[in-house]
Amino acid sequence: MPKDFLTGTELGPQGLEEVLALAELLRSERKAGKLRRELEGKTLALVFEKPSLRTHLSFSVAIQELGGQVVESFSLNRKKEEPEDVSRVLAGYVHGMVVRTHEHSLLERMASQVSTPLLNGLSDTHHPCQILADLLTLKQRFGTLRGLKLAYVGDGNNILHSLLLLLPQVGVSVSYACPAGFEPNAFVLKEARKWAAEGGGKIESTNDPVAAVRGSDAIYTDVWTSMGFEAEEAAREAAFQGYQVNAQLYSHAKPTALILHCLPMVRGKEITAEMVEHPNSAIFQQAENRLHAQKALLSRYFAGR
Amino acid sequence: MPKDFLTGTELGPQGLEEVLALAELLRSERKAGKLRRELEGKTLALVFEKPSLRTHLSFSVAIQELGGQVVESFSLNRKKEEPEDVSRVLAGYVHGMVVRTHEHSLLERMASQVSTPLLNGLSDTHHPCQILADLLTLKQRFGTLRGLKLAYVGDGNNILHSLLLLLPQVGVSVSYACPAGFEPNAFVLKEARKWAAEGGGKIESTNDPVAAVRGSDAIYTDVWTSMGFEAEEAAREAAFQGYQVNAQLYSHAKPTALILHCLPMVRGKEITAEMVEHPNSAIFQQAENRLHAQKALLSRYFAGR
Amino acid sequence: MPKDFLTGTELGPQGLEEVLALAELLRSERKAGKLRRELEGKTLALVFEKPSLRTHLSFSVAIQELGGQVVESFSLNRKKEEPEDVSRVLAGYVHGMVVRTHEHSLLERMASQVSTPLLNGLSDTHHPCQILADLLTLKQRFGTLRGLKLAYVGDGNNILHSLLLLLPQVGVSVSYACPAGFEPNAFVLKEARKWAAEGGGKIESTNDPVAAVRGSDAIYTDVWTSMGFEAEEAAREAAFQGYQVNAQLYSHAKPTALILHCLPMVRGKEITAEMVEHPNSAIFQQAENRLHAQKALLSRYFAGR
Repeated sequence: MPKDFLTGTELGPQGLEEVLALAELLRSERKAGKLRRELEGKTLALVFEKPSLRTHLSFSVAIQELGGQVVESFSLNRKKEEPEDVSRVLAGYVHGMVVRTHEHSLLERMASQVSTPLLNGLSDTHHPCQILADLLTLKQRFGTLRGLKLAYVGDGNNILHSLLLLLPQVGVSVSYACPAGFEPNAFVLKEARKWAAEGGGKIESTNDPVAAVRGSDAIYTDVWTSMGFEAEEAAREAAFQGYQVNAQLYSHAKPTALILHCLPMVRGKEITAEMVEHPNSAIFQQAENRLHAQKALLSRYFAGR
Repeated sequence: MPKDFLTGTELGPQGLEEVLALAELLRSERKAGKLRRELEGKTLALVFEKPSLRTHLSFSVAIQELGGQVVESFSLNRKKEEPEDVSRVLAGYVHGMVVRTHEHSLLERMASQVSTPLLNGLSDTHHPCQILADLLTLKQRFGTLRGLKLAYVGDGNNILHSLLLLLPQVGVSVSYACPAGFEPNAFVLKEARKWAAEGGGKIESTNDPVAAVRGSDAIYTDVWTSMGFEAEEAAREAAFQGYQVNAQLYSHAKPTALILHCLPMVRGKEITAEMVEHPNSAIFQQAENRLHAQKALLSRYFAGR
Repeated sequence: MPKDFLTGTELGPQGLEEVLALAELLRSERKAGKLRRELEGKTLALVFEKPSLRTHLSFSVAIQELGGQVVESFSLNRKKEEPEDVSRVLAGYVHGMVVRTHEHSLLERMASQVSTPLLNGLSDTHHPCQILADLLTLKQRFGTLRGLKLAYVGDGNNILHSLLLLLPQVGVSVSYACPAGFEPNAFVLKEARKWAAEGGGKIESTNDPVAAVRGSDAIYTDVWTSMGFEAEEAAREAAFQGYQVNAQLYSHAKPTALILHCLPMVRGKEITAEMVEHPNSAIFQQAENRLHAQKALLSRYFAGR
């Protein structure tokens, strides 16, 4: 088993399926009031360089509901301390770390120095924990993943990267439409195509949102201006005209198509209020699934370790 | 039973009495080293938009001493996310929320979207948790509440609002003296008079601190400049001349009258150092009672839920 | 037994030896997967006015691994509330406090008002928790403490103060070299000489790093610009030329001499990267020992209290 969870590809297709199956089991156990103690005696550190609502709280609850303990730090204090030094110190105190930071390379540097697992709680290029929750949401609604088609419309950011890396390897095709200049990273795309070839999901790219959405089982978007890109906000709004998820665009998807968003969202920009409250919207179910998916991930990485 | 605890009137007179009785029992059990596990398996979120010492720490301790788990967030990230979205996300992770914010309406918006209970940890217009602790303090000192008279001298703020709403309904009269322009909100006062009619406590208003204090069983004040009003500080100091709780003013109360303050305080402004350390001062007892009162409240809202 | 742990001298030589012995036992128990429950039912407050990585996380883990509960506050809110008032309020909620602040006198003021123990998590003049970890590191490497000689090279700060107060009383000599103007506080030094006379360790001072290091069993340094002294950075860098711990300076110590640093560090300033990764470097072992030493300290102060 790999030590870390940085891009999510560490699990491999089978591992991914197992985590999703366990997540669903843990969800039903929780609903029945049953909690496990698989992290008893273990402490995990949550380290956040950027603000976090969902990742922070869902991991805090997940760790504690598995019987483990949480310690938190809201700064890597980078001006004063090398990230490698921080992770070497943390490794003396805790059994694992969840880290949210800017550069993905920083996670790699921190992970490389220690035998303690490091889980990616969002970096500038990857957000695999969110995609575990998204896959769980798809599976809950459709029963099976293989053969589904998800359309992503909007910014070619960390969410799209992780969708491209993780969905096709379990047989879900991804069709994405990004404005020129906001396409996903070429290196990530190349890696994603390799995994797709293995798993059977297709990757399709277009600049036309309608073409991307046509016949899809799910339509996914994210804010046009992610954390750290606030200075580009006006230019981005102009570039993303026509990429809004609204009733008109949704009409090209299958009638049962799920509406997905990783939150936070700006109603009236990348998605209309009507779509958020649509009967097929699973946006808040996705958010809740962060909890169940991450519990399964924690169980896999730390139970019995 | 009501879902939320926003103004404190949700409990009703009988519920209020029951919470106070349970609080006193929990206090004596704690002193004897006995802790309950009524929140076992439950997690509560503490969400604070404004700084907090007492509310934050007393709720953290209360939840954990009842066997529950705490997760914390120090921002509602309002620029990025609607409060209703935040509470819908939280409801997927936790069994209840304690929220401190500016506008009381924000609490109502958050509570309206979810079936998860929301407890008010202070808003611009209400602070019912503090008043539970104050009532407990009065009961500990006098044995019974009915027939007591409390005088409030100073700013007509959230503390006075909650005193007016909650004390008369269990038979404690409130006599308040506020400078012109700093009187309590008319809408709250109207609501308070309704509850007072039912509970038997009287509400009296004056601009003369001596008249308010005369014959009272307790004298209560708060800072002249609450959080969020720092810009008005100089104007407020001028307006509040003559409203200081000092030995001269205290001499008009009963000799056994309690001296109360919800903290933080500025010695030499709204209260003299001499009054703080007076044998009848119960200021730090009030602060401790936050713990016991909130444990009782948590037990009522979450045990067996 | 003393109520507080402010300078570390409260333990006395025998108490210090007992804490170190317990720390080593707790370390081996932890490695074997055994955790104690000595703080069951007890809550400690961590109060930090300055940023903290090691102290914050090691105490959080330590308290929880002993079965206790943690509540945290990241401000003393000093503009709004007297420190004495804060500690009186905290004493109503928790069984003990770990406080990091600027002025050491503030800790004394907070401790003086309450019967609840207060542990110093670093002040401008003392850092005894770090020195417990350092002593544990020396003992782990050399088996015994008596007769060892530690050389400290650099800023005459809180670390040097606590080394001077605590090492000689258990028989470890301290030889220090600080640039003119950066010597340790005369009052602390006087107090340290008293303890040294009792414990048998010697205190030697020089302005020559080579003289300080000659024949030593350990060489210790700290950043040239501690928290709060950032404005002096340029002047300090000039003053500290020649005080770098590097291979040349290290060659004057014993061949087995440990290389110590309390972190965070600036490679290329007070210590070279080569020294950090030297086989005799115990820098990250020191950091880990914070956990074990503080668990022993907590056990001594709170178990059975």
